[in-house]
Amino acid sequence: MEEPTQQPVEATPAPAPMHERTGADRNTIYIGKKNAMAYVLATVTQFNTGAAEVKLKARGHAISRAVDTEEIVKNRFFPGLKIKQIILATEEVTSEDGRPSKVSSIEITIAK
Amino acid sequence: MEEPTQQPVEATPAPAPMHERTGADRNTIYIGKKNAMAYVLATVTQFNTGAAEVKLKARGHAISRAVDTEEIVKNRFFPGLKIKQIILATEEVTSEDGRPSKVSSIEITIAK
Repeated sequence: MEEPTQQPVEATPAPAPMHERTGADRNTIYIGKKNAMAYVLATVTQFNTGAAEVKLKARGHAISRAVDTEEIVKNRFFPGLKIKQIILATEEVTSEDGRPSKVSSIEITIAK
Repeated sequence: MEEPTQQPVEATPAPAPMHERTGADRNTIYIGKKNAMAYVLATVTQFNTGAAEVKLKARGHAISRAVDTEEIVKNRFFPGLKIKQIILATEEVTSEDGRPSKVSSIEITIAK
């Protein structure tokens, strides 16, 4: 019989990942380039598995998708959704050519 | 959003436009597809001509540009800028093919 190339399912717990998620991180959803519905699903899942608050974080062009996510979660899933806090900021990032550049960011804290 | 056709410079006071700007409207800047610096300049001009507050309004993809505008105004022009209110909402718009669709919006109220 040939060796299966697929890794066996681990029976033991995985080792802690390098960037272990803290309590705050666990309820943070980083909004990227996927369709807003992907982040809506992630947010609804967080609430339905016990999170009291969820933070939606986005930078640059993804900022509008973070707002879309919050609005869809409110309008379709949790009509009583409360926006607890919105933080606007500027972050330093390193662009592809290695030069530093600045990008706006948003952090929307919501509670159902 | 349609670009307004440029009006000639008028020597006499203009008649009241069909959509006369109310006190609230006067300090509202609608963020569209121009470079963020165009809206930064408009905002700084509003403050420098006596406005106590300026509202930055944007829909859809322009939302991230509204945040850029606020951040650039704060970081380069008015370090003490205060964000008084941020409203996130959903607006009904009619798309080019005549069908209704929904778009997220932001309204950022700032004071220097």
